[in-house]
Amino acid sequence: MNGAPPGLNEVLTRTFSFPKRHFLSATDLNEVEVANLLDLADGFVSLNRQTSKKLDLLKGRTLMNLFFENSTRTQSSFELAGKRLGADVVNMSPRSSSISKGETLIDTAVTLNAMQPDLLVVRHASSGAASLLSQKVGCSVVNAGDGQHEHPTQALLDALSMRRAFGRIAGLKVAICGDVLHSRVARSNIALLQMLGAHVRLVGPPTLIPPAADRWNVEVFHDMRKGIAGCDVVMMLRLQLERMDGVMAPSQREYFRFYGLDREKLALAAPHVRVMHPGPMNRGVEIDSEVADDLSVSLIQDQVEMGVAARMAVLTSLAARLENER
Amino acid sequence: MNGAPPGLNEVLTRTFSFPKRHFLSATDLNEVEVANLLDLADGFVSLNRQTSKKLDLLKGRTLMNLFFENSTRTQSSFELAGKRLGADVVNMSPRSSSISKGETLIDTAVTLNAMQPDLLVVRHASSGAASLLSQKVGCSVVNAGDGQHEHPTQALLDALSMRRAFGRIAGLKVAICGDVLHSRVARSNIALLQMLGAHVRLVGPPTLIPPAADRWNVEVFHDMRKGIAGCDVVMMLRLQLERMDGVMAPSQREYFRFYGLDREKLALAAPHVRVMHPGPMNRGVEIDSEVADDLSVSLIQDQVEMGVAARMAVLTSLAARLENER
Amino acid sequence: MNGAPPGLNEVLTRTFSFPKRHFLSATDLNEVEVANLLDLADGFVSLNRQTSKKLDLLKGRTLMNLFFENSTRTQSSFELAGKRLGADVVNMSPRSSSISKGETLIDTAVTLNAMQPDLLVVRHASSGAASLLSQKVGCSVVNAGDGQHEHPTQALLDALSMRRAFGRIAGLKVAICGDVLHSRVARSNIALLQMLGAHVRLVGPPTLIPPAADRWNVEVFHDMRKGIAGCDVVMMLRLQLERMDGVMAPSQREYFRFYGLDREKLALAAPHVRVMHPGPMNRGVEIDSEVADDLSVSLIQDQVEMGVAARMAVLTSLAARLENER
Repeated sequence: MNGAPPGLNEVLTRTFSFPKRHFLSATDLNEVEVANLLDLADGFVSLNRQTSKKLDLLKGRTLMNLFFENSTRTQSSFELAGKRLGADVVNMSPRSSSISKGETLIDTAVTLNAMQPDLLVVRHASSGAASLLSQKVGCSVVNAGDGQHEHPTQALLDALSMRRAFGRIAGLKVAICGDVLHSRVARSNIALLQMLGAHVRLVGPPTLIPPAADRWNVEVFHDMRKGIAGCDVVMMLRLQLERMDGVMAPSQREYFRFYGLDREKLALAAPHVRVMHPGPMNRGVEIDSEVADDLSVSLIQDQVEMGVAARMAVLTSLAARLENER
Repeated sequence: MNGAPPGLNEVLTRTFSFPKRHFLSATDLNEVEVANLLDLADGFVSLNRQTSKKLDLLKGRTLMNLFFENSTRTQSSFELAGKRLGADVVNMSPRSSSISKGETLIDTAVTLNAMQPDLLVVRHASSGAASLLSQKVGCSVVNAGDGQHEHPTQALLDALSMRRAFGRIAGLKVAICGDVLHSRVARSNIALLQMLGAHVRLVGPPTLIPPAADRWNVEVFHDMRKGIAGCDVVMMLRLQLERMDGVMAPSQREYFRFYGLDREKLALAAPHVRVMHPGPMNRGVEIDSEVADDLSVSLIQDQVEMGVAARMAVLTSLAARLENER
Repeated sequence: MNGAPPGLNEVLTRTFSFPKRHFLSATDLNEVEVANLLDLADGFVSLNRQTSKKLDLLKGRTLMNLFFENSTRTQSSFELAGKRLGADVVNMSPRSSSISKGETLIDTAVTLNAMQPDLLVVRHASSGAASLLSQKVGCSVVNAGDGQHEHPTQALLDALSMRRAFGRIAGLKVAICGDVLHSRVARSNIALLQMLGAHVRLVGPPTLIPPAADRWNVEVFHDMRKGIAGCDVVMMLRLQLERMDGVMAPSQREYFRFYGLDREKLALAAPHVRVMHPGPMNRGVEIDSEVADDLSVSLIQDQVEMGVAARMAVLTSLAARLENER
């Protein structure tokens, strides 16, 4: 069936329709739905490790990648996910074109929608952009990062990485460390991890922990050694220097001393600790190369691999949802 | 046959070979040939509205998109058209590469031609560029906009939009309004609409109506209210401020007052009037959002949808022509 | 079998596995292996001249084009090669994205590798970049140009062009002329041509012949007339002015006078001489248009055509190698 290998067919026959038409926030899913998506994604991990990595589940569907912000990594991940499922994929980076001609975000979306895509993957520098678009189009919208708001497929791939490493997520102690203030990755992860029963800590200097964290039901630490003590997962965030002005930006050497993850600090975590990072890494700033490259503790490459599989699961189930609606 | 839905098969069996090897100008077609292309395009509109939007009519063919000027919209439209027909599509935007290394337009074309494309879609800032290329290559060339000269697939998609809205084109009163001077869209539309029997008016300030309009057998109006009075179609053009120097550029507020399409001016047109715009729009400059977004009068989204279908018809028939030549 | 035309099947049934996992240098191949690759490439030339240019030899495989330096020509050639073989192709030009976020070359490679590509085609401004990457990834790496070091698929396509023009390569007198200093094309060609038994001459001003040429077992000429006298092939190189500072750059008029290939100089070569150039050409600098455009002597367009076919042969055999390893 569908060109899928025997192992995958079992998963694929569990028909799974995404609970909503769009995937905008980690909170669009409940615990059971996440489990279903991760099960499906596990199947795609097996597929992607084969020589032949191609299905026809989305044959005849159109996936549009609409990236207002550059991202080699995330865009390629969605592009590969779509192509391996047999979809026609069109990439658009409208920085230099319509935008410079004065077209609005909504006009761009409505225009693309008229070309009858089935799936529209959007990255934009403004919080809420994907949600705004989703109200104007007939296709399914996937939020691939909107400002400092959400990046839900990242949270999903992180959950997949953790579930495969630990066999479960409930009960894990996860420290999310560093530049939480500017991180949509952090926001999506906090929401998803809490729903799945993990204990979430935020670790960083006071200037990089958003005031709203008080309402997020998380433990906040400004001392990294205390923050990661006993943790199962240490998830480092990229210091987003490009979003800081001169005054705000910390000295990178100072930052590394207090909040950079090195062997010595990591020794305070649980013995079986795993280290994560959404990439791209600032080596020597938020993470030491010795830790980043130690495959016995680092899940960083796994996260990238899980990214393609998790996105294949999202795209497949969104397409099933859209098919049901029609 | 060919994976096409039943409804489409009827159209596809009407074998249609493009009358020339290249599609450079709206004048490459006669009335019967346009009707055949629009019939074929109607079939592709049905296809594109289905869940599965994929045929294998161009399987094994290569489509190259060669865009020397940026255009998210037009390039994506051709890319989708090619992919949905099963072609292999390669996009090239040679601004920053060979051009900066000093390669000439002809060298670029001859080089690409040696890679054996079947279809070469070209956009270039110079009038006549596509025609020049077409003399140097063995494949079919589609002019996707050459300077201020022609944009024939735009005229074809506009005709498709009008024919679907009114059931006919002959006898329609069409006012083409605004920056006619810089508009290749206007030139191609004037040629095609007149051939199909529409009555064409040009409306705009004297500085934006080209002197050559005297020879085009059109009525020219400098008063917009008089120009659109009683018209079936009001086709607004984008004010191409990027092509005007400081002296020439009108005040946008003044421009909107005299030549911007708003509800009040539109009330002077025929009761069943439809509004068109090739996009991207300058909202509040040449068109008011209230008009642009009123789906009871606006064909603007339809135009985009028809664009993919019309281009699929052009590509299919050009490929048939090339096949016959071989 | 495989959708291939009858003529091609014979070639394709000669199973050929690339001798190494990666193709980094012309010296990765021996004479027999080159002959096998060129035989396979000949079959792909036939395929590409057909209306239907599509096989499924690489269906389900992923080809990533990772171009840190712009190249419309080479990137399109690999993209087409991959697509015509049925692979999923993803293009990446990480200039503006991860690189600007501070990611290292190795991090980029390791990240992409985690997405499970089968083939990674790399162009980079630094000599040794492709080799460095190849040590970090599980897929096959093809060097598509690394600094001034090597461009082995260019040497292979040049050999294919020569073998088709002369029926053999052994014994040919080949003059490689011009900016040898900055040319990775020259380095790869020298290695491959010498292995195949051609007699290689280098021709250029002393400032543009690298000192290391003394050890390459080639004849060096600073007088172009003497250098090309009696040669079967005159291979012109692009004067890479963008790599020269103001002091070093020769006057283009002077350069043309002494080292530009025109009819008068060419008359000194063998009567059946063929002219080559890897493109893009600086017309009137290293080559006169009269020579470049004379299809009775110029192989320049053939080189581009052979490029797609040679790369299809490389990709096919690398994929076979990888399959055998697994």
